[in-house]
Amino acid sequence: MGTATAPAGKSPLVTIDRVHAARDIAEETGVDLLVLTPGSDLRYLCGYNAHAMERLTALVVPRRGEPFLVVPRLEAPMVDASPAGALDLELLAWDETDDPFALLAGAAMARLGTAPGRVAVGSRTWAEHALGVQRALPGAALEIASPVVDRLRMVKSAAEIEELALAGAAIDRVHARMGEWLRVGRTEAEVGADIAAAILAEGHTGVDFTIVGSGPNGASPHHELSGRTVQAGDLVVVDIGGETATGYRSDCTRTYVVGGPADAEVAAWYGVLQAAQAAATTAVRPGVTAEEIDAAARQVIADAGWGEHFIHRTGHGIGLDTHEAPYIVAGNDLPLVPGMAFSVEPGIYLAGRCGARIEDIVVCTDDGVRTLNEGRRELVELAG
Amino acid sequence: MGTATAPAGKSPLVTIDRVHAARDIAEETGVDLLVLTPGSDLRYLCGYNAHAMERLTALVVPRRGEPFLVVPRLEAPMVDASPAGALDLELLAWDETDDPFALLAGAAMARLGTAPGRVAVGSRTWAEHALGVQRALPGAALEIASPVVDRLRMVKSAAEIEELALAGAAIDRVHARMGEWLRVGRTEAEVGADIAAAILAEGHTGVDFTIVGSGPNGASPHHELSGRTVQAGDLVVVDIGGETATGYRSDCTRTYVVGGPADAEVAAWYGVLQAAQAAATTAVRPGVTAEEIDAAARQVIADAGWGEHFIHRTGHGIGLDTHEAPYIVAGNDLPLVPGMAFSVEPGIYLAGRCGARIEDIVVCTDDGVRTLNEGRRELVELAG
Repeated sequence: MGTATAPAGKSPLVTIDRVHAARDIAEETGVDLLVLTPGSDLRYLCGYNAHAMERLTALVVPRRGEPFLVVPRLEAPMVDASPAGALDLELLAWDETDDPFALLAGAAMARLGTAPGRVAVGSRTWAEHALGVQRALPGAALEIASPVVDRLRMVKSAAEIEELALAGAAIDRVHARMGEWLRVGRTEAEVGADIAAAILAEGHTGVDFTIVGSGPNGASPHHELSGRTVQAGDLVVVDIGGETATGYRSDCTRTYVVGGPADAEVAAWYGVLQAAQAAATTAVRPGVTAEEIDAAARQVIADAGWGEHFIHRTGHGIGLDTHEAPYIVAGNDLPLVPGMAFSVEPGIYLAGRCGARIEDIVVCTDDGVRTLNEGRRELVELAG
Repeated sequence: MGTATAPAGKSPLVTIDRVHAARDIAEETGVDLLVLTPGSDLRYLCGYNAHAMERLTALVVPRRGEPFLVVPRLEAPMVDASPAGALDLELLAWDETDDPFALLAGAAMARLGTAPGRVAVGSRTWAEHALGVQRALPGAALEIASPVVDRLRMVKSAAEIEELALAGAAIDRVHARMGEWLRVGRTEAEVGADIAAAILAEGHTGVDFTIVGSGPNGASPHHELSGRTVQAGDLVVVDIGGETATGYRSDCTRTYVVGGPADAEVAAWYGVLQAAQAAATTAVRPGVTAEEIDAAARQVIADAGWGEHFIHRTGHGIGLDTHEAPYIVAGNDLPLVPGMAFSVEPGIYLAGRCGARIEDIVVCTDDGVRTLNEGRRELVELAG
């Protein structure tokens, strides 16, 4: 059991305009029906922050007619208590032995006056729900709603950017305290537990991840925590993030050297990494494409001869999800527009030895870039 | 960023036998290909506890030929560090600009010697991944893998039941301490924060949910926490659960009356609820169907005239997910077999006034039932 209670009453972030904008884009792109289940799409559009569960909850937006919510009857009070309760969406409640997909299909067809041809489901909608919709609308072709919803979610409002800035400042405060916890002789798991507590203490309501990659573990970009003890001279990749009360996320990586300065070779390639991260950040402005930002970082690292050690994309969008559009990766020719927020996080990884990564969240502004993280991007020496 | 590191090395719970058993059931039921993405299906079958992410990770089990794992190359070290690393599964790693669905489809067709007709994806696989598989295998009919995977996951081994028993004992210790936190004048949110800390302190590695439904909030079964202050004489529904290190879950509800005894009317219908919960529990034995367990609880409540106030199913299976098969609900004629573990949790809800629920996790044994929660099922009076 358990569905998170979103704050009751009107949200300054969510209005019915978002649902109507999604309907307009559906209409414009020929999508007949949007079906969005619990997760960030639902929370973004109508303010209802429900856990994903086996019982179907869905915001349904037909290209014509009024949008509606399908909810298990026992969770109907949760909708009313959330910001969605202020949006005057029709609530179709279903009982435990009802077929919610038939309910959804019938209400959608009544509004459309016909069976929908193109039905777009949320990218993270569970397959059992997507295929349930397909079963109830056998003539429909299923597709992903991202092209509709991401057009809205990708471009943050001023209020959303302030939420991301608050999250960024909160995670910066955690990094600023790293010397309290990251010391020689402590395990990654011990350091990670302290970081997790600090993420909560410094203004988040949830911990999303705590990566503490010490020594050779730093060469595995998604290594999280282990029982390895931090050694004198270790490089340590610390990539951490959390969720704030409004659902916006932080995500910031700094690389530390503990108990002694880095040797000359490390200092040399770390300098390359720092230059790459700066190059990608300063390349951000409207009209530049996502893949050009990726290339800006990659070129610096490749030119210095370390290209094969930068094994992932340069970044990802961030908002109500830690990873969302736009992805900063080769092949993505999406031009940046003001309000897009994403990470810039090149890394260099030496298998079996160590790794380093530098990550900031940045926002494309009208004429350039705003960085939402502060703190030192050079290799940070901790006493150990 | 962030993928949880599963404990390294061999797991006493996971062996390659589970993957082979899934393949045997696929073969028997005519499913050509199983595709299971991060979540409990993947963790159950091969021990890899990955976060669900936009990058495709999948365990692929063709009805013929060797199973394999598709993973982003930057996460390949995570697989090796998990129990899955000991299973000798072939690892197909993909780079950031590769098409992982084409990789998956090609490897599957090579093993099958033909294009698959029936492809079953995990019930909680993200739609973007399910439809990516569909795009790469355009001739395939997509279905849900639950009929294959649930046949295994539903029936717990002795080792799994011991994990659930440990989780149950841990959550019982939290309930036993409820008088420390649940007091008149404190908000539900304050009580919930203390419970969350205790869930971690008493042997869980994660908090799944903390429902504290005081007074009228108790009438909303999935109400979680609010700023409401507990009043003298309130009934308070406390439904809490967490995850242990091995991934198994706890889930237990007790109803408390704070700062004074319940009045006679409440005591009367609470007695009915207690009798219903006991009737459903004692009805558990092999061969009885899931819906008969539901009916056993429902009948007692209906006979006493409170039927319309019991607005949800009687229970849900539990294991690596808090909610999984078998669901204890009208219409589910699945016969119980030894090893099935599920909740028995009838409730009575009086809109605008209060509610009560009693929940234990039980296991069907060779000749009856084992209850994995202890503690008092009567209305527990706290001094307040």
